[in-house]
Amino acid sequence: MENRQNGEAKKEEEPKDSICGYDSLHLLLKDNLNPHHFQEVSRLLTGLNCGKAIETIALPESATALSVEHGFDLQAFSFSADKEQLREPRVVRVGLIQNSTALPTTAHFADQKKAIFEKLKPIIEASGSSGVNILCLQEAWMMPFAFCTREKRWCEFAEPVDGESTKFLQSFALKYNMVIISSILERDINHGEVIWNTSVVIGNHGNIIGKHRKNHIPRVGDFNESTYYMEGNTGHPVFETVYGKIAINICYGRHHPLNWLAFGLNGAEIVFNPSATVGELSEPMWPIEARNAAIANSYFVASINRVGTETFPNAFTSGDGKPAHADFGHFYGSSYVSAPDASCTPSLSRYRDGLLITDMDLNLCRQFKDKWGFRMTSRYELYADTLGRYVKPEFEPQVIIDPLLHRKAS
Amino acid sequence: MENRQNGEAKKEEEPKDSICGYDSLHLLLKDNLNPHHFQEVSRLLTGLNCGKAIETIALPESATALSVEHGFDLQAFSFSADKEQLREPRVVRVGLIQNSTALPTTAHFADQKKAIFEKLKPIIEASGSSGVNILCLQEAWMMPFAFCTREKRWCEFAEPVDGESTKFLQSFALKYNMVIISSILERDINHGEVIWNTSVVIGNHGNIIGKHRKNHIPRVGDFNESTYYMEGNTGHPVFETVYGKIAINICYGRHHPLNWLAFGLNGAEIVFNPSATVGELSEPMWPIEARNAAIANSYFVASINRVGTETFPNAFTSGDGKPAHADFGHFYGSSYVSAPDASCTPSLSRYRDGLLITDMDLNLCRQFKDKWGFRMTSRYELYADTLGRYVKPEFEPQVIIDPLLHRKAS
Repeated sequence: MENRQNGEAKKEEEPKDSICGYDSLHLLLKDNLNPHHFQEVSRLLTGLNCGKAIETIALPESATALSVEHGFDLQAFSFSADKEQLREPRVVRVGLIQNSTALPTTAHFADQKKAIFEKLKPIIEASGSSGVNILCLQEAWMMPFAFCTREKRWCEFAEPVDGESTKFLQSFALKYNMVIISSILERDINHGEVIWNTSVVIGNHGNIIGKHRKNHIPRVGDFNESTYYMEGNTGHPVFETVYGKIAINICYGRHHPLNWLAFGLNGAEIVFNPSATVGELSEPMWPIEARNAAIANSYFVASINRVGTETFPNAFTSGDGKPAHADFGHFYGSSYVSAPDASCTPSLSRYRDGLLITDMDLNLCRQFKDKWGFRMTSRYELYADTLGRYVKPEFEPQVIIDPLLHRKAS
Repeated sequence: MENRQNGEAKKEEEPKDSICGYDSLHLLLKDNLNPHHFQEVSRLLTGLNCGKAIETIALPESATALSVEHGFDLQAFSFSADKEQLREPRVVRVGLIQNSTALPTTAHFADQKKAIFEKLKPIIEASGSSGVNILCLQEAWMMPFAFCTREKRWCEFAEPVDGESTKFLQSFALKYNMVIISSILERDINHGEVIWNTSVVIGNHGNIIGKHRKNHIPRVGDFNESTYYMEGNTGHPVFETVYGKIAINICYGRHHPLNWLAFGLNGAEIVFNPSATVGELSEPMWPIEARNAAIANSYFVASINRVGTETFPNAFTSGDGKPAHADFGHFYGSSYVSAPDASCTPSLSRYRDGLLITDMDLNLCRQFKDKWGFRMTSRYELYADTLGRYVKPEFEPQVIIDPLLHRKAS
């Protein structure tokens, strides 16, 4: 089922945290179960093979050659939708890039950023030559994810929305007629030079359509982002592009069902979730939350996670009583796409850079709104009232106390 | 890992819809992967084996004997929590029962109900003798799930909250000092004899603590419940019992993140999800939604699904253009428990009656609220405002339109 077009490519990183040296859950199961069992497990776990199977896409040789030459995972799938009478199919090709950084964090900041640009070029070229319409990079792709350190010097990486990282991508957007979602550390020049975690949406003409700032900021494990930036002030914008209505739920926002909901209420058809998250903390949540959001909100979700282990010059503690250490843990990649019909693609590698290409007919969103009716059966009035009461300090929960609570068992 | 205490028990139903005759996903993987691979797959899929493993519980021989004699699946697990300095552990033993009906739907209604009572007795006895504190039965356990037919005669099964099904369970609640959650078809005598889908909460002294009515009613596939009853009018009550604060999200409500949220806002520590759902429609969603709710709301979720295939006297159509047929499809069981740390138990059988017993330290809920902080980082004010605006007919979504949308690609 998967498109192991670069099966011979070199591994970028040894699977240090793996006990069995596999590349992805999907391949581990496929390589070790008989075909009947694998098919049934896929049906239960990914909603595949129940009637409509997910199809692989044939990519141009130029893309395959780039993946082999540069050692990145390249997989491509297609979701199908029913044919309608009054609407033509609206098939969009989405590309997701996951990557490790390119130079040690001790290198000059300018060199680090430039090296990431150079590393990404062939992967972006492979996207463009494969006809990708909307391309999304991982969270803060233009820097190491240094927020674990709590050192403010990493703020130097921040750029205005129209800074060098945006300019770098604008040329590709124009060249390949692609919409590109670029998540950066933003320096807000017009508001006291403050820092934000921001996604810039670049239109297919190379224009900047707008930006969205991360709504929910973590305070867990080594995710010390609240030291660097505040909760976003851009609401839940949906960007209407030539390829469909898209939105961005940045990283930790995926743990917040209301965040997913609000993008849906504003009409999103694809919600991108550019992330940076590590194995010990979140890996069992990774295959759950995005799929739940796709099901509950009848849209596609495209999940991207950073890859690799980044080591910093100065050791730091993690608030867990353990000794100081200099790395954040393993970013486990595993980027994938979830559909409103509860199916999902296999995930990219846990260890290597990768490009996941997925064709999706956006008509599937409304088809599943009609089929399951969640938007109609949701009783939003009830919850507007509940939340309106909850946010008041004097809120009293609805609790029915057993009147015999303190009587001894007979 | 699983407690295959009744490995030799007879199968109640041939796995008609299975291509490989396995009993559960968990056993399929365990029996076909080597131990290292199985351990890693379990970590990725269920959050187990990352540090804290889930433990099996030894049950009394009387319970094991009942499971063998009556051929029901019996499994028992324990979740752990960190030891605290200021709170003692609050370990609660929860039991979930999944079952098929006992007589053909053509039998006299009184006989059908009585036969279900008789069938459940040994499973409830096994629960009681195993020291279960809170027991939950499946949705509308006292009748066939006849709402696919749209025939109103099945309303005869409905009972008042203090009717015969409640009385049947009250004696066990008293005998075993158990809280029992009983989901019935309710006849509301004091309000024009209307019908509701209702869970009755019976206290450990055999008293009725209260009731909750299903909040979200499906209109999908053969789930024609909207023909029989309306959306519940009991809000999102949390029942404070001697064993902890519990709530009930009935069946289709599991597709609605706001429903899960509201029980959490009211303080639930365990939310039960008594369900009746069939393979072709919902099976890939089943392992997703409950776990997402447990993660997002920092509580335990106990999911129960009915088992078996029920055939009705008169054929009905399904609005899918296919020929009329007389059954609803296969109710796939697979009851399981999800924890706030993103782990979950293996599931019960897809084919057989079953009792799943789980020990959970309710301290884990607050520990994960403190660790992940979702309740603090949720920005409820923002969403109270969003929903308040959304429910107005004149709502305008937040959309940023690419100003170059209609310019041709260069």
